[in-house]
Amino acid sequence: MKERDFIQNKKLTMQKLEKAKKEGKVDKDIIPILDIMNSYDEFYTSSSCYGRIVLLELPELGDKKNAKWLGKWHRTIKSKELLDAFDKANKGMLWLLSQSPIIHVFAKDLSAADKLVKIAVSCGFKHSGFKTVDKNIIVELSSTERLDSPIGSDKTLFYNKENIDFLVDVANDVFEKSNKKLMKLKDRL
Amino acid sequence: MKERDFIQNKKLTMQKLEKAKKEGKVDKDIIPILDIMNSYDEFYTSSSCYGRIVLLELPELGDKKNAKWLGKWHRTIKSKELLDAFDKANKGMLWLLSQSPIIHVFAKDLSAADKLVKIAVSCGFKHSGFKTVDKNIIVELSSTERLDSPIGSDKTLFYNKENIDFLVDVANDVFEKSNKKLMKLKDRL
Repeated sequence: MKERDFIQNKKLTMQKLEKAKKEGKVDKDIIPILDIMNSYDEFYTSSSCYGRIVLLELPELGDKKNAKWLGKWHRTIKSKELLDAFDKANKGMLWLLSQSPIIHVFAKDLSAADKLVKIAVSCGFKHSGFKTVDKNIIVELSSTERLDSPIGSDKTLFYNKENIDFLVDVANDVFEKSNKKLMKLKDRL
Repeated sequence: MKERDFIQNKKLTMQKLEKAKKEGKVDKDIIPILDIMNSYDEFYTSSSCYGRIVLLELPELGDKKNAKWLGKWHRTIKSKELLDAFDKANKGMLWLLSQSPIIHVFAKDLSAADKLVKIAVSCGFKHSGFKTVDKNIIVELSSTERLDSPIGSDKTLFYNKENIDFLVDVANDVFEKSNKKLMKLKDRL
């Protein structure tokens, strides 16, 4: 891709990002990191997620289209919050997910992109790599921690109260561990 | 990397692979796919996993070094097999994992690598991408299905018999879905 196109695309993407920020559509806590990345001429960020804990209801495995989001939090949670969200369950598999941050970055050239991947990996984002190097060079920064747990079905939880506390602790732990890595990355950029 | 080096490295890696095959150290069912990939001059495969269901005991979250493998299967399982493996539990968190296949491929050049990633993504390996494009070009083919579920602690399971059946069904379903993608990829190569 020509440098002129990269600069032009960055400009357009940054305008969209500023608009999304104003509309509260960007995870608040990830904004400082996006701002640092976007301050470099070599990069601009695309879709990103700060990490999240999610309670999903799925009609069947992998049927994300018809998934119902019963709860979504970009922070650690309390058992009561999970149980309140569970009250909205109706029919289908219940999954608790704790997902670590994902940041997509467009890079001007391969060497800048490779450097970014190496820094991210050294901060613990071990799943980082290039999504494509064809027309655009897109890097995905992501970590390995996650929880993908079927915790109930058709309005019934598999866990008793005590085990729910344990499960929520694990979900929070996953969230916190990966967010520590994000802070480390922020310092290294 | 120079073409001569690529050819030389491929030769060495293929010798190691043949040795590992003879020693039964390569997941049997993934061999036909590796063989097809390695038949192309542009590629050679590195570490790969056919996908697996695993019962792990972890002293604490993320402490993989001290993880105890209570059970590991490169196939679907029955509840009884999981419970038999669970009998070996002692102390720590119990996790049931169902992991989809991962194949690492060295590519001769970027355009061949990009083509491979695009084919893999079109077969459902949506997490595929480049690990590095520096000295070597390494592609990782991987899918999104997975189960990472804390199912017990200190010799106690959170699930009753019926729920264990449900959980094992989900683990098997994850395994089968991602392996169907692998067959699709095999046909497309």
